[in-house]
Amino acid sequence: MSAPPSVETLIELMAKLPGLGPRSARRAVLHLLRKRSLLLLPLADLLTEVARTARECVTCGNIATEDQCPICTDPRRATGVICVVEDVADLWAMERTGAFKGRYHVLGGTLSALDDIGPEDLGLPKLSRRITDEGVSEVILALNATVDGLTTAHYIADLLEDGVLVTSLAQGVPVGGELDYLDDGTIGAALKARGRV
Amino acid sequence: MSAPPSVETLIELMAKLPGLGPRSARRAVLHLLRKRSLLLLPLADLLTEVARTARECVTCGNIATEDQCPICTDPRRATGVICVVEDVADLWAMERTGAFKGRYHVLGGTLSALDDIGPEDLGLPKLSRRITDEGVSEVILALNATVDGLTTAHYIADLLEDGVLVTSLAQGVPVGGELDYLDDGTIGAALKARGRV
Repeated sequence: MSAPPSVETLIELMAKLPGLGPRSARRAVLHLLRKRSLLLLPLADLLTEVARTARECVTCGNIATEDQCPICTDPRRATGVICVVEDVADLWAMERTGAFKGRYHVLGGTLSALDDIGPEDLGLPKLSRRITDEGVSEVILALNATVDGLTTAHYIADLLEDGVLVTSLAQGVPVGGELDYLDDGTIGAALKARGRV
Repeated sequence: MSAPPSVETLIELMAKLPGLGPRSARRAVLHLLRKRSLLLLPLADLLTEVARTARECVTCGNIATEDQCPICTDPRRATGVICVVEDVADLWAMERTGAFKGRYHVLGGTLSALDDIGPEDLGLPKLSRRITDEGVSEVILALNATVDGLTTAHYIADLLEDGVLVTSLAQGVPVGGELDYLDDGTIGAALKARGRV
C-alpha cells in the first residue's frame, strides 16, 4: 500500500461515482489534497451538510433541504400546471431551459411489470390528489421517449383524462439536428407532426 | 434555482474535480443522494478525516497521515536505494508495478527557470542529506521523459555524482507498442540502447 489506508479507501469510494474510474479517482484525490483549503475542506463540509439535510420534497419529489423544495415554495411559480418527469435529473434539465414556469411531479421511475413497479410506487395516487387540491388544469408529460416512458405516459393519460388536459412534449427534429444523422423513427414522427411555416 | 442552495454549491465544487464537468458533477451528486448510506455518508466522513490528517511525509514527500508515510515506515523496504519521482502520482504509478522495493523521494515538480523553481524548492539538499544518513548506494531517477524532466535529471546526476550511483529508467519501445505508431525519437532511442536477445 503506497498511500495511507484512509486515502486508499477515499480513492475506492470516489471511483464509485459515475464518470470516474480508478485512475481518475486517484487524480481527483491528489487534486483534492493539493487544494486542501480551497476544495477539500469545503467539499467535506458540504457533503456532511447535504447528507444531513437533503431529502425528497413531500409535494413533488425534487431534492429538498426543507420539507418542500425551492420550486414548490416559490410563490411566483404557477400552480395550475404540473410537469411530470421520470427523475430529478429530468426536472433539472427542464429547469435549465427556463421555459417552464409551473410545478413538477417526479415519478422516480417508469411503470415496469418486469421490475414490479406499479402506479403506487410512482406516486400516481398522490398526483391525482394534487390535481384536485391545487386546481390543476394541465398535466404536461415530459417522460423519456423510450418504450417504458411511452407506456407510462399512456397509463397516466388514461388515468387522468377526466377533468384535466394531458399533454406531452412534441417529438421531432432536435434543434441543430441534421436529417442525415437522425433515425427513421424521429424523421417519421417529425413528418407526421409537421406544422405550417 | 431548481435544487436547494447547498446542493447547487456541492455540484459546483464537484465540477472542479479533474475528470468531472458540470454535467457529470450533477450526475455524481444525484448518484450520491440516491446512495446516501452506502456512498454519501462514508464519503463525507472520509473526506473530513483525510482533510484533518493527510500531510506530506517528512522524509520522502509522499502522502501520509502520520509524520512518515507507509513506505518510509515499512521495515521490509530496502534503505539503500532511493527512487526520485516528480510527484506523488508518479510514486503511486511506480508502486502499482510492484517492481521496486526501495524508498522514494518526491520532488514535487521539476527545475524551471521560467516558474522560478530552484534546487531548494525540490528538496534536493534534503535528498543529499538522505543519501548520507541512510547510506544510499543508488539513486534511480524516474522522472518524466519531458524536456523539464530530462533537465532536472541531468542536474541531479551532476549534483550527486560523487559517492553514489545515479541511474535512470530505460527508454525504448513500450510493452505492447507497435513500431508503426511510435514517434521517431522513441524508435531512435530504442535502437541506440538495443540489447542482445
